[in-house]
Amino acid sequence: MTNTKKLAFASDYMKGAHPAILRRLTETNEMQTSGYGADPITASAKDRIRKICACPQAEVEFLVGGTQTNATVIDAFLRSWQGVVAAETGHISLHEGGAIEAGGHKVLALPQENGKISPEVLGQYLSDYWQDPNHPHMVMPGMVYISHPTEYGTLYSKAELKELRENCNAYQIPLYLDGARLAYALACPENDVTLADLAALCDAFYIGGTKCGALLGEAVVVPDPDRLPHFFTIMKQHGAVLAKGRLLGIQFDELFRDDLYLKIGEPAIRAADRIREGLQQGYRLCFGSPTNQVFCVMENRKLELLAETVLFEYWEKYDDTHTVIRFATDWGTKQEDVEELLRVIGRLA
Amino acid sequence: MTNTKKLAFASDYMKGAHPAILRRLTETNEMQTSGYGADPITASAKDRIRKICACPQAEVEFLVGGTQTNATVIDAFLRSWQGVVAAETGHISLHEGGAIEAGGHKVLALPQENGKISPEVLGQYLSDYWQDPNHPHMVMPGMVYISHPTEYGTLYSKAELKELRENCNAYQIPLYLDGARLAYALACPENDVTLADLAALCDAFYIGGTKCGALLGEAVVVPDPDRLPHFFTIMKQHGAVLAKGRLLGIQFDELFRDDLYLKIGEPAIRAADRIREGLQQGYRLCFGSPTNQVFCVMENRKLELLAETVLFEYWEKYDDTHTVIRFATDWGTKQEDVEELLRVIGRLA
Amino acid sequence: MTNTKKLAFASDYMKGAHPAILRRLTETNEMQTSGYGADPITASAKDRIRKICACPQAEVEFLVGGTQTNATVIDAFLRSWQGVVAAETGHISLHEGGAIEAGGHKVLALPQENGKISPEVLGQYLSDYWQDPNHPHMVMPGMVYISHPTEYGTLYSKAELKELRENCNAYQIPLYLDGARLAYALACPENDVTLADLAALCDAFYIGGTKCGALLGEAVVVPDPDRLPHFFTIMKQHGAVLAKGRLLGIQFDELFRDDLYLKIGEPAIRAADRIREGLQQGYRLCFGSPTNQVFCVMENRKLELLAETVLFEYWEKYDDTHTVIRFATDWGTKQEDVEELLRVIGRLA
Amino acid sequence: MTNTKKLAFASDYMKGAHPAILRRLTETNEMQTSGYGADPITASAKDRIRKICACPQAEVEFLVGGTQTNATVIDAFLRSWQGVVAAETGHISLHEGGAIEAGGHKVLALPQENGKISPEVLGQYLSDYWQDPNHPHMVMPGMVYISHPTEYGTLYSKAELKELRENCNAYQIPLYLDGARLAYALACPENDVTLADLAALCDAFYIGGTKCGALLGEAVVVPDPDRLPHFFTIMKQHGAVLAKGRLLGIQFDELFRDDLYLKIGEPAIRAADRIREGLQQGYRLCFGSPTNQVFCVMENRKLELLAETVLFEYWEKYDDTHTVIRFATDWGTKQEDVEELLRVIGRLA
Repeated sequence: MTNTKKLAFASDYMKGAHPAILRRLTETNEMQTSGYGADPITASAKDRIRKICACPQAEVEFLVGGTQTNATVIDAFLRSWQGVVAAETGHISLHEGGAIEAGGHKVLALPQENGKISPEVLGQYLSDYWQDPNHPHMVMPGMVYISHPTEYGTLYSKAELKELRENCNAYQIPLYLDGARLAYALACPENDVTLADLAALCDAFYIGGTKCGALLGEAVVVPDPDRLPHFFTIMKQHGAVLAKGRLLGIQFDELFRDDLYLKIGEPAIRAADRIREGLQQGYRLCFGSPTNQVFCVMENRKLELLAETVLFEYWEKYDDTHTVIRFATDWGTKQEDVEELLRVIGRLA
Repeated sequence: MTNTKKLAFASDYMKGAHPAILRRLTETNEMQTSGYGADPITASAKDRIRKICACPQAEVEFLVGGTQTNATVIDAFLRSWQGVVAAETGHISLHEGGAIEAGGHKVLALPQENGKISPEVLGQYLSDYWQDPNHPHMVMPGMVYISHPTEYGTLYSKAELKELRENCNAYQIPLYLDGARLAYALACPENDVTLADLAALCDAFYIGGTKCGALLGEAVVVPDPDRLPHFFTIMKQHGAVLAKGRLLGIQFDELFRDDLYLKIGEPAIRAADRIREGLQQGYRLCFGSPTNQVFCVMENRKLELLAETVLFEYWEKYDDTHTVIRFATDWGTKQEDVEELLRVIGRLA
Repeated sequence: MTNTKKLAFASDYMKGAHPAILRRLTETNEMQTSGYGADPITASAKDRIRKICACPQAEVEFLVGGTQTNATVIDAFLRSWQGVVAAETGHISLHEGGAIEAGGHKVLALPQENGKISPEVLGQYLSDYWQDPNHPHMVMPGMVYISHPTEYGTLYSKAELKELRENCNAYQIPLYLDGARLAYALACPENDVTLADLAALCDAFYIGGTKCGALLGEAVVVPDPDRLPHFFTIMKQHGAVLAKGRLLGIQFDELFRDDLYLKIGEPAIRAADRIREGLQQGYRLCFGSPTNQVFCVMENRKLELLAETVLFEYWEKYDDTHTVIRFATDWGTKQEDVEELLRVIGRLA
Repeated sequence: MTNTKKLAFASDYMKGAHPAILRRLTETNEMQTSGYGADPITASAKDRIRKICACPQAEVEFLVGGTQTNATVIDAFLRSWQGVVAAETGHISLHEGGAIEAGGHKVLALPQENGKISPEVLGQYLSDYWQDPNHPHMVMPGMVYISHPTEYGTLYSKAELKELRENCNAYQIPLYLDGARLAYALACPENDVTLADLAALCDAFYIGGTKCGALLGEAVVVPDPDRLPHFFTIMKQHGAVLAKGRLLGIQFDELFRDDLYLKIGEPAIRAADRIREGLQQGYRLCFGSPTNQVFCVMENRKLELLAETVLFEYWEKYDDTHTVIRFATDWGTKQEDVEELLRVIGRLA
């Protein structure tokens, strides 16, 4: 249970939704529409997304959360004898309760650097698999999963994505990108990847809603819908079809009205940058994350003190006397809370 | 796509949420709380449900939709060699895209009457299975699934539920009840089953939110939590854990404030009763449903006319010139719409 | 545990293998060959089968048993959202411990007549599915499973198979035939279906070894191997690849040397015909089986007596005082045992 | 396809069966017995195994091959939310085509040393999992899989097995041992683990037949049968029940007659020791395997020459000019073939 009086930097899903979303939900509440996403607002949301992705033929579907979305899309792409390649730190590798394996597929975990798979490591892995004379006894790499930003807040460059795409092309396997925190990439000055780039480079990707201003919801974009026939039934089988499907349509219609989604992450990036600046004085920053997640090493003796007034996340053990912790900001993080956080940290020393 | 000007009786998930829910979402929007359901409002909602179920030790968990809930609970109860017994018309048998089988379990379909499994049919089936010398070659019936109201809008009596329970006891298998439309049972004069009865008679049941006033969400109640260890991880694996878990907690906290859920279905029952009364003049009613679903037989030539102004559901072919159709009412159905519907039908003749 | 002194008519898998098989196993025992079926004898067996099927391009693979073969082939054909259509009495529907569902797929059970699916029933089912506006919420029929002979010993005519094939063509789904007892069809005068016919009409079928003279083993024939890419890996995943793969190759090489398989069932058919002739005096025969399974109705009071000297199978309850029982003959059934069986039955009266 | 004139050291499954097995199959061929393992010879085989394991209450079941056995036993132990811990080089991790994941379970791969999991690494892993506050989002380690000998031919000491057992006890999870090549451990002077030790230390293990003198077959031993209820149905679901179950019973009855299994690996160990002795002159041996697998580093330029007269296995790349290769011996390896192999290798230099 959470003491809501504390400074809340534990995650980017601690409040409700962007006000525009609640307003629209209220306005449309009495409207009566068909279920399962066959309503005009959902149709409008899909159109907005197709347009900003410069991909008029794309299939766009709204699902509920990240684990469900990953399990459904991966299941839709893979055949029974195939697995999905992912960084060993990938969300599907570690933190989805085995949802991919529950669907019958192995996660083929690759070594990572700051949460990213390098094109070289991927290329070597794929080449080794096909050259191994015993490969028919092994799970075939059937697609590649990456996240952007990664679980460590880092970003792929457009050049890196192109190289990963070429690797996938060489073995004719799809590339799928998990954009749970995509708004924080799009708002980050270091990012050079647009939504249209993703539509050009990925076989599927999802635009995260839950962590980027919505109450819940993720928008899957499949640039060539022929790649995923019968996706509705696959969604249904995964429990991913909402009877009141418009709940998701309404939210994404707001998130993409006037390109809101492109800007919604800006306060989070500004806040995270300020925290990084403040921490640089006395703390070691980790992973080089430029987005809304800030990782730093802190002495264990300070953590208890910090926890008295701040909600943050223990990330991993650093050494016997230090821990890596995470501060996450979001679309609604307030400047005064950031300054107070830095004051609290300043007093720890 | 739906013409929202039509009289909307196609289903009970065509509008948004009960106004109290939207109000509470708006009020709490800025609050910052822990994710994954570890927030105080979710805790309050669980307590309200435990109390009304007279079951202080029950585990209560909030999931997103019916198919997901069924797949998760059934997967939690069954071992790999077991299947789930259900009416051949049960939602899990027909309309969940094979979600149960995707989890590795067979749906053992039994003959039904108006959507219900009779205790006799169930008892005979279980007895036959165990007496068949080849039963180790067959899927073991590992639990029983029923819905209340059923997919045909009918209700089990408390006496029938007790008999089903005794059947389950005799073979030491759990009884699970799908209450997607439970509010419409609770508001129906013919119903003699309370939430406390369900907690006493079922090993698990769910209280439907999506079709009963919420934007989305179902509340699973497990009277003896030891029966389903590690249920959170099972939920996670099924993509059924929301990062912003409080979205469900808030809704159920409102639905069970001042026992709202017990009364929320009343307008729907009144409306359905009025429609049944009106139809009895010239149409044959089907299945004997006393709840918010009204089924009747209509000449095919009239259907096209009716569809010009009314949204309803084609249920099944009756004969070469007639069809069974369904009108569904809900917690927000307006009296004037009902009267207009009856006028439209009156003019069809 | 079995008293081996009794007359053994309980099943067609009560002895070892055809003597030619044991001889060849002994002759080749010291040979050293590559594993996993990459040996010259297995290659020869595949060639013999391709030749007798008049299908030089067919993929032929040897698996261990019927349940494994069905689960593997069905898993290879279906996508995650599809199910397999079968008679409600089909082996996969009832007696394989839920192996198909364990692979994630629903068995879509159809009404049957004497173990057979009629082309009309199949056509109606497929048509109804695709015409149902809710079909995207339902499991898509993705292939059709039939057995020949059926579980009731009956046979499809070539004309019926052609009609089933046309139904499958109309919906572009594969037809798969389980030939666990295929030798007994091929040896039966009523049968008008050849192995070449099966290769022409089915997308896959298996030639049963276990019940037809082998120690174990089933030969899957896939006329167009492009339909099942990566079948070896699928087999591996199902535990269906033997390290000493030649154990299966050797057996099928013998079964198809000099067309042995076409004749090996003849003694069984002669024996079954003689039993049917003998039973016709005082007993009602069931299901019209013309192959190696004989079903008849017997008074319960006689069964205990019969069981003292004969091994047979209880099939199902007929009425309160009668039971349907089965006598099965096989490739090695001895004429004197048949005559003794008939004498025993004669004395029951 | 294999040139059978070559010296065959590629694997331990290149010939048929121990002569006693073929003899017994021939002697019993005409016997008629019940199917599915309910025959007196299978019963005798189980008794012999229970006796040599000093475990009279053990359940013993015969399955077909290693992948099938591992998938079936692991599926029997795990609940849906659990995974199986294994060395990253474990057979289930790499070479079973994803059979464990196809059953819905993650293989939790641990770092290994010469194919073994150290008790320290296991203990740390289990402790870390339970101490991680996010562990409910992760796959729970539900059992531990080890192989003995390992895939690298190495052996656990009795002391190491006891420590692994204690780790499992601390977290109340079962320990399962894959004994595909167990005969070669039992015949190895370095081994201090008996069958009775395995029965005392493991929750389940299997005694390998396929690689140890049988045509096929593995014997699963479950010391406390209450741990795996309904194992027959689980086997059936995995396609692991043979209609002619006695084919496995007969082989294991011979393998355990007069303790044959304890001695059957001796020729293989003698042969492997002689090869190791011969190789030590000019080659680097790898992994320290004392059993029937000999690994050494060879210059790539020599491999082609060697392959002209010898069948061996490419194991893995060592460096740009060297490769690790494997010679495997078996129960029937002839001394003269070993000497000829050493002469051939001697001439390579």
